[in-house]
Amino acid sequence: MFSERIDRLTSSLVRDILSATQQPGMISFAGGLPAPDELPTPDWSGIPASAAQYGPSEGEPALREAIAEDARNVGIECDASQVLVVSGSQQGIDLVSKLFIDPGTPIITEAPTYLAALQSFELFGAVCHGVPLGTDGIDASRLREVAQDTGARLTYVIPTFQNPSGTCYSAETRAAVAEAADDLGLTLFEDDPYRELVYNNVDRTPICSHIKSAPWIYQSSFSKSFMPGIRVGYLIASPDLMPHLVRLKQATDLHTNRFGQWLAHGHLTSPGLADRLAHLRQAYSAKRDAMDAALTEHFNDLAEWTTPPGGLFFWLRLRTPIDTRELLPAMLERGVAFMPGEVFFPATAPSLGYMRLNFSHASQEQMHSGLAILAEAVRATPAA
Amino acid sequence: MFSERIDRLTSSLVRDILSATQQPGMISFAGGLPAPDELPTPDWSGIPASAAQYGPSEGEPALREAIAEDARNVGIECDASQVLVVSGSQQGIDLVSKLFIDPGTPIITEAPTYLAALQSFELFGAVCHGVPLGTDGIDASRLREVAQDTGARLTYVIPTFQNPSGTCYSAETRAAVAEAADDLGLTLFEDDPYRELVYNNVDRTPICSHIKSAPWIYQSSFSKSFMPGIRVGYLIASPDLMPHLVRLKQATDLHTNRFGQWLAHGHLTSPGLADRLAHLRQAYSAKRDAMDAALTEHFNDLAEWTTPPGGLFFWLRLRTPIDTRELLPAMLERGVAFMPGEVFFPATAPSLGYMRLNFSHASQEQMHSGLAILAEAVRATPAA
Repeated sequence: MFSERIDRLTSSLVRDILSATQQPGMISFAGGLPAPDELPTPDWSGIPASAAQYGPSEGEPALREAIAEDARNVGIECDASQVLVVSGSQQGIDLVSKLFIDPGTPIITEAPTYLAALQSFELFGAVCHGVPLGTDGIDASRLREVAQDTGARLTYVIPTFQNPSGTCYSAETRAAVAEAADDLGLTLFEDDPYRELVYNNVDRTPICSHIKSAPWIYQSSFSKSFMPGIRVGYLIASPDLMPHLVRLKQATDLHTNRFGQWLAHGHLTSPGLADRLAHLRQAYSAKRDAMDAALTEHFNDLAEWTTPPGGLFFWLRLRTPIDTRELLPAMLERGVAFMPGEVFFPATAPSLGYMRLNFSHASQEQMHSGLAILAEAVRATPAA
Repeated sequence: MFSERIDRLTSSLVRDILSATQQPGMISFAGGLPAPDELPTPDWSGIPASAAQYGPSEGEPALREAIAEDARNVGIECDASQVLVVSGSQQGIDLVSKLFIDPGTPIITEAPTYLAALQSFELFGAVCHGVPLGTDGIDASRLREVAQDTGARLTYVIPTFQNPSGTCYSAETRAAVAEAADDLGLTLFEDDPYRELVYNNVDRTPICSHIKSAPWIYQSSFSKSFMPGIRVGYLIASPDLMPHLVRLKQATDLHTNRFGQWLAHGHLTSPGLADRLAHLRQAYSAKRDAMDAALTEHFNDLAEWTTPPGGLFFWLRLRTPIDTRELLPAMLERGVAFMPGEVFFPATAPSLGYMRLNFSHASQEQMHSGLAILAEAVRATPAA
């Protein structure tokens, strides 16, 4: 009765976790939610009355201009005609999946990578081949090998404060990945939602800005630096891809809600933007440091981790590899939510013994009590 | 390089038309846009601060409750757990396509039917089989035959003020279609965006309310009765379909923008709702009557039509069948936009000599001058 892709709809684990985190009193290390205190109050002034009407599929012209200018400031050569406003990054992933993926299409991702991207790629039938992440990003020569071995024409990467690992690619790796894409004519899909959440001085130059000839798509979002409830993100793409992406967008939801687009425009062009972002970085880096200290107290003998230079997550590698999915039901029952690491790996690269822990949501007290419960459970679980 | 579905992305005709209608001075009979004068001013009061945060994939609980109550009032037995808020009706069509359609999947539509639904179904690879529309809707026995001949498991219908034809199914046809769906276990996808735009006393009982055992999806939108810029619509589905639809929604854009959902909630629960809808019906029925008179003046010898009892469109059948797509470039150049009728037919049921003319957007003066230009062109074109 249903389409074949319904057999590929992956488990409801994430939904279960997110729904559990709605329960009062739950200590959540699970989501990538902005801290409620850091969410701005919407400013509805200055929005034209025409925003109530249907709008263009590409997005509001003023917002596309502001996004293009912002992107040029970080090194991406583009103009507004290359910007497609989308209904959040997840929709960007849906549109790119539609553009490139048939059942059986090989694609390349980092291992681990963003769970919901994997879900979308696999829903469309992709066979995802993982390239392992090192401390500087993926190895570009390994990327070349995998592309040649599998025939993959699309690579999805999150080079800056990667989800789930927190990794930030080095400048050398960024250039090497771009060069590999150019040499192989491999389309690069770069997802960059965390770039404004930077706490240490690291290179954040988009890989897309290094690309000379390969097709590319740069994606970002207003969900992490502004507010997720508006569901506004954007793609910037090489001109060869744009006409297809725009028509796919039109077939998918006509256009993104216009009031949200105008809020995003107000945010991006506000004279107070730099101050707001500086405040956000300060608040989140304090939370990161508190979590780092709490982890050292509770997990020092149980796991290894690198303090993330940006983003929203710690990525723990347990010294004794266990299937952390099995911890979850008991932890949710005890009021602690976390993301098991296994679900972030493509099926071709299974791996045990990782956990992703968000630090933006819990209070300092919750961090300590939650991590104590979690550490106790890890300690009590024998190796898989 | 691209997926196979990109070969199925249909022509950019509609985009060309809609982009032409943005030009100043254009007389547009093309879109289904609400009249600018009828668009309300958004009321942002009473929206909780939490609307800035991520929200549930299913939609805001308060909105889902209000939608379920509204649906029960028109005869659909349902509760809020069966409501999925979507980012406009087009997304509802995308999700239903994802749920049911693989390349080669046969489905049934009316002939003619809503162009953008056809585009979505065909993008996913459906083979659309058209059942001809009569004055009372489709013939239920013909529906049974086509379902049995083709093996189609899904039927898409717009029984109330159908797009493009304006047809409103009779009470008998509604019951007969539901019975056919029940007998065959055929999933019924009922699209009902125009139901509030009613100008004559006709039966508008949703077909889904007659269904006893077949799976069903009822879809509507806030775009026609409230404002399209918020991109908020909804599906109500039989309980067997809901878990899949919710997970597809999550994979597609996580959730619909929350501020738009709260505006829709304010609209639906407003004590002034009945007055507002009464005003809208009065304004649009006056426009319909003006268009009817202008058509009689300019098209009486050229075409036949039925005065639509609701909705936004006149559907003209030309006495001399011509390919109306060929008129379009010259008409756009002369400042008149319309929708050629051919594009509303599935490929398996081609048909010439129809035009869809919207009456909600143009002023009375524009109706006369625009229809005069259009009639002149039709008169000058020889039969195909």
